[in-house]
Amino acid sequence: MTLKNDRLLRALRREPVDCTPVWLMRQAGRYLPEYRATRKTAGSFLGMAMTPELACEVTLQPLRRFPLDAAILFSDILTVPNAMGLGLYFVDGEGPKFERPVRSSGDIDKLAVPDMETELRYVMDAVRMIRRELDGSVPLIGFSGSPWTIACYMVEGGGSKEWGKVKALAINDPAAMHTLLGVVTDAVIAYLSAQHAAGAQVLQVFDTWGGTLSPSMYREFSLPYLTRIAHELKRGDTPLILFGKGNAAHLEALAESGAEGVGVDWTVTLEDAARRTQGKVALQGNLDPAMLYGSSDALRSQVRAVLDSYRNGNGGSREGHVFNLGHGMSPDMDPEHVAALVDEVHRYSAR
Amino acid sequence: MTLKNDRLLRALRREPVDCTPVWLMRQAGRYLPEYRATRKTAGSFLGMAMTPELACEVTLQPLRRFPLDAAILFSDILTVPNAMGLGLYFVDGEGPKFERPVRSSGDIDKLAVPDMETELRYVMDAVRMIRRELDGSVPLIGFSGSPWTIACYMVEGGGSKEWGKVKALAINDPAAMHTLLGVVTDAVIAYLSAQHAAGAQVLQVFDTWGGTLSPSMYREFSLPYLTRIAHELKRGDTPLILFGKGNAAHLEALAESGAEGVGVDWTVTLEDAARRTQGKVALQGNLDPAMLYGSSDALRSQVRAVLDSYRNGNGGSREGHVFNLGHGMSPDMDPEHVAALVDEVHRYSAR
Repeated sequence: MTLKNDRLLRALRREPVDCTPVWLMRQAGRYLPEYRATRKTAGSFLGMAMTPELACEVTLQPLRRFPLDAAILFSDILTVPNAMGLGLYFVDGEGPKFERPVRSSGDIDKLAVPDMETELRYVMDAVRMIRRELDGSVPLIGFSGSPWTIACYMVEGGGSKEWGKVKALAINDPAAMHTLLGVVTDAVIAYLSAQHAAGAQVLQVFDTWGGTLSPSMYREFSLPYLTRIAHELKRGDTPLILFGKGNAAHLEALAESGAEGVGVDWTVTLEDAARRTQGKVALQGNLDPAMLYGSSDALRSQVRAVLDSYRNGNGGSREGHVFNLGHGMSPDMDPEHVAALVDEVHRYSAR
Repeated sequence: MTLKNDRLLRALRREPVDCTPVWLMRQAGRYLPEYRATRKTAGSFLGMAMTPELACEVTLQPLRRFPLDAAILFSDILTVPNAMGLGLYFVDGEGPKFERPVRSSGDIDKLAVPDMETELRYVMDAVRMIRRELDGSVPLIGFSGSPWTIACYMVEGGGSKEWGKVKALAINDPAAMHTLLGVVTDAVIAYLSAQHAAGAQVLQVFDTWGGTLSPSMYREFSLPYLTRIAHELKRGDTPLILFGKGNAAHLEALAESGAEGVGVDWTVTLEDAARRTQGKVALQGNLDPAMLYGSSDALRSQVRAVLDSYRNGNGGSREGHVFNLGHGMSPDMDPEHVAALVDEVHRYSAR
């Protein structure tokens, strides 16, 4: 099926576009009153994510308000370990937790790759339903957490400021850590391949916590698994984006990973990132999400600065840039500001 | 008075040392049972920090256990805005808060530099008392929060994940933000000068939240104020260390700031940091604090890797390195591991 709006795919192939495509991490979220209404009906976050009709509904909500250039599957980065039997649950205001975290080599040895069309069928059904509803208007992005990021939650049993348990496992028993990361990577590859088969037209891996590692630990425990995903994933011409909070130190390596796109946070300039990646990948980002708290005028000026920064580092061309935030949106952000952001990206980059 | 152990001062002057000096951010803290006992006596964190005898006692506690090469004043980075009238208080498990945060230009215009020997006399009395008790054994480090970091708390009224309010002020009304940062910088300079006059032999500025800024905002709202402190502070031959979490992108600029030392977190290798700063400053850091959760053997191996990394980037020499963590210690860390860390730094670097 031909896409009516293929800006995102063209940008990820570094082809010319009429204007820079834009989507926003967590664009389907609590800042939208219609999302909060659906969430209330669903009763729980997980109930919403695990009911294809509701996941489809919230995925489409931001597209009805804003001329975004992509939809992203509404789901969670921890569906895979949940399907591995860890028992995912959410406590309001505390983020995700696992009933049965991984605490020993014995726990790790018992892990297996879940079956995608049974244990994670609700995700694939949502992908199929969203594709049908989108009807070729914009591409659908499927996603997964990265192996390191998923392992962080599996070992800690939830979020952490220090990630002390998972880092202790990595330095005390690197072999066990690699076994864990290996099986999680197998599962991530199967998961993304299944999303692709179900209809996802772009895939993104969120390495949210890779940036909490020292450079040597990042090269041992995160990067090789991202590279394996890029190489082994059966994705045809479906582009893969590797996003990582705090990955600025590793852009050269990520540009060689085999992925088509690299997503960066706002602590690096796109000018610098584009120079360092030398056109080997498309770049996605990287407005500081907190800029959405500024006035509409100040926000528009910051949007232009991000667009100019990319172009300056990319030899004067806008090709190969996907506009996004440097991290996800927050519940207290104003939908009117999102409208201004999307408008300014399209308006300014079309000149 | 001649110091019995002047390794820290020699390292900050990039002079030869018999072994690499080591101290740890938050070395006086809840991981020590004797700290928890004093804290219980004091009744509150602020009560402890504001009572010179108790601040002195907890400052000295880690020195009685470990052969650390420096003491650091027990205090808080928010004593200055508290003295400016914002009403600092602590809620257990939630970190610092202000009763009267800065919300408008009117609030900013009312701020004034507090008098150091009246409103912050309890800090200066603690410095004098600690110096007397140390009796020349090791140097005493005085400190302050950075202007940007202090302003973050003043505007938000407490900690934040996004720092949305302070960033919105910075982009919506940069003139007001600079007025705020200007008066805070005046106060920080007066505060550190007074600590120096009272006996602090090394000074450190904690720019804990500078790394949450984009590069252009860092260069506008944090770096110039750090540089002003380095230039205007009357400190004689008392060295100044600028520590910043997430400052890896700005090391070249910090090396030109006029400070003697730059403290870095663990997301950059010291090899890279030393190459980029070219011997213009001493470097302090940068073990990932989470390594203290590892086994004693794994921890020692990580300590050696940090020492080797610095030497590799510094032309084969250990001169100009102060060993530290890349951030502060946490309450659930094991004092036995701190002993192993300090021992390994001294043992391995003396070879």
